[in-house]
Amino acid sequence: MKTVKAEIIAIGDELLYGQIIDTNSHWISQELDLIGVRVVRRTTVGDNREDILEAFSKAEGRADIVLITGGLGPTQDDLTKPLMAEYFSCPIIEFPEAVEAVTSFFKRRGREITPLNILQGHLPSCCTYVPNEVGTAPGMWFERNNTYWMSMPGVPHEMKKLIKDFVLPKLFELFDLPVIVHQVIKTVGIGESWLSDLIRDWENALPQHIKLAYLPSLGHVKLRLTAFGENKTSLEQEIQEQINLVFPQIKEYIYGYNEETLESAIGKLLKKSNKTLALAESCTGGYVSHLITSVAGSSAYFQGAVVPYHNQFKHSILGVNDETLKEFGAVSEQTVKEMSAGVRKLFNSDFGLASSGIAGPDGGTESKPVGTVWIACAGNGFIETKKLQLTQDRMLNIQLTAVAVLNLFRICFSRK
Amino acid sequence: MKTVKAEIIAIGDELLYGQIIDTNSHWISQELDLIGVRVVRRTTVGDNREDILEAFSKAEGRADIVLITGGLGPTQDDLTKPLMAEYFSCPIIEFPEAVEAVTSFFKRRGREITPLNILQGHLPSCCTYVPNEVGTAPGMWFERNNTYWMSMPGVPHEMKKLIKDFVLPKLFELFDLPVIVHQVIKTVGIGESWLSDLIRDWENALPQHIKLAYLPSLGHVKLRLTAFGENKTSLEQEIQEQINLVFPQIKEYIYGYNEETLESAIGKLLKKSNKTLALAESCTGGYVSHLITSVAGSSAYFQGAVVPYHNQFKHSILGVNDETLKEFGAVSEQTVKEMSAGVRKLFNSDFGLASSGIAGPDGGTESKPVGTVWIACAGNGFIETKKLQLTQDRMLNIQLTAVAVLNLFRICFSRK
Repeated sequence: MKTVKAEIIAIGDELLYGQIIDTNSHWISQELDLIGVRVVRRTTVGDNREDILEAFSKAEGRADIVLITGGLGPTQDDLTKPLMAEYFSCPIIEFPEAVEAVTSFFKRRGREITPLNILQGHLPSCCTYVPNEVGTAPGMWFERNNTYWMSMPGVPHEMKKLIKDFVLPKLFELFDLPVIVHQVIKTVGIGESWLSDLIRDWENALPQHIKLAYLPSLGHVKLRLTAFGENKTSLEQEIQEQINLVFPQIKEYIYGYNEETLESAIGKLLKKSNKTLALAESCTGGYVSHLITSVAGSSAYFQGAVVPYHNQFKHSILGVNDETLKEFGAVSEQTVKEMSAGVRKLFNSDFGLASSGIAGPDGGTESKPVGTVWIACAGNGFIETKKLQLTQDRMLNIQLTAVAVLNLFRICFSRK
Repeated sequence: MKTVKAEIIAIGDELLYGQIIDTNSHWISQELDLIGVRVVRRTTVGDNREDILEAFSKAEGRADIVLITGGLGPTQDDLTKPLMAEYFSCPIIEFPEAVEAVTSFFKRRGREITPLNILQGHLPSCCTYVPNEVGTAPGMWFERNNTYWMSMPGVPHEMKKLIKDFVLPKLFELFDLPVIVHQVIKTVGIGESWLSDLIRDWENALPQHIKLAYLPSLGHVKLRLTAFGENKTSLEQEIQEQINLVFPQIKEYIYGYNEETLESAIGKLLKKSNKTLALAESCTGGYVSHLITSVAGSSAYFQGAVVPYHNQFKHSILGVNDETLKEFGAVSEQTVKEMSAGVRKLFNSDFGLASSGIAGPDGGTESKPVGTVWIACAGNGFIETKKLQLTQDRMLNIQLTAVAVLNLFRICFSRK
């Protein structure tokens, strides 16, 4: 089986000048990787005839499929369409179906169509018109000498829909793509090198056609298993067997698989057991609450949060003893214990989580430098706590504490 | 004055496979744009000899300065260094200073140096060694036929430091760069096209050497003014005069300039007037509190927040009348009014802000569809409210509401 090679070309001065970030090329890379198409190059060129034509001709020699984003607006700066017509030597003509689509797009939004927008329905005669249901610039598909081309608008959600609805199915139709199965194991609370030490024997014993990738991000490490072969069902089974093998070695760090996030995993735990949660956030300042409420349906288990940014409110709202605050300070095990118990009571919830720390850049002392954080998880008859010693960076401290708080809850929940 | 042209080459399979996102190329584009260097192309290639060498040779023909990131790790996958040696036809030799730097880098971290890491101090003999103070892979500077080259590690904070400390000063030294002055006007609460209508006459009357760019993002539009010329002081003065001219036409939408964020602008207003703020967040779920507490020093004016995710806590913690909730519902003008007044009282703050809405995807009704949101700002003797009708997307609704809440406060504050 021949490897299918792809090249991605992003067009636009605004990309080269750093006015907008090109998230499209990265997203397309991910999608193609998932189906076993190899991206061999990504190029960004400006709104410039020679550069665009040169990028086209170089790509034609290297790739089986060329994916082009941007440069499709209705104004004269946007060169992709005329240059594709030039490159493929065919005139731009009216595609009545495309004119109709852009006209009705404007009608649906109650806006007057302009002559410039009508021209968006005029396309190179040698292309296949690909309807863009969520925007005004159509997709264009070209074929020549066994290289396939797709031109798409640069607006991310328009491009994504064209890739999902048209390009990916087309690639499966045109090419003998390998059968690939992916599974991602999501872990938290352990660094990449420690994880790698724990699973080395298993990793070394993986069969040739199953590959492992470590994908670390803030406080998390994703383990991506990719199996290549001929039969989807048997690959799925093989990957599942490998997961079953590695699971006992790292189960305490696994919170989910594939699209699961730590906050959605926690939501499932709570929902399944009909339990509820409340938060007292000092140094995280509402960020944990934001993560939890980002999950649709979180109102089923999330009662609410208090951000007592000053000590007096840790006392007046959460009932932390004034003596505790005086004797141990706001950033202490005693204080987060009382905060977690207090917020649990205030919201009448099954669990209460609390954070208190010095996010920085100011407020550190010799005994409690910037990055010192205490977190707690209170439940029926128990309170667990943990001390963190983090970084000098305020945002990083907030984000790392949030992950630690969610993970502490996951651990507490599984123990009780 | 000749335009200085730059090309950026990012190296690494992990970029092409979508395992990590290339934020470096975008960041470098922005930095070069600010000093008037034109990026003419960005290329991403994999860990592949032919592709890397071809990218080098193409770049040499097009650019005055070539900036290369990635491919500098200590393992055999990392090809940048040997290929640069090959491309410039010079052997890799020991640079004692570089070996010393990487050795002491490991020593400072209390880690044993490995033979592989020592080799990171061996570099092509024809390069200038550029110390990397925050990592192990050095920068390498090359010159040939009036093209300059800088190779840097792909780790963002290492690359950024090398660009700031070495590359940018070097570019000023080598090239006769245009004098460029930028000012960014930050606006909120008005869309790009409306803003453009308001300032059209001013925009059309701008002198040739001052350019305007509209940079829209979620709920915000940045207006970037760029002046090109010979004398920095007079350009700064000219840009300031243009800002003074446009200011009266859009002053109600301007919250700051350059690096200012809406949340830091609000912090300044509060700090300057010695006033304090508290939040009652229902549909925003802690996100506004997170934005405000992301600003260092926010504890000087931020008292705290309550996220009453269920109606009973709007009553029990914030004192919203049960009758209000029964008669008008949680998503109503009456409820957010009482929430904002209640949280102001609870935290004994000068201002109280509140949000309540249907973020979605569930919970919408015919009279209150998903995306219906009420927000309020309470101060001494007044409460202002606003109704928003947003989207079907939960995260977008949370983010847009947060911007609207902060903007409502900005407006309230300026009126009282």
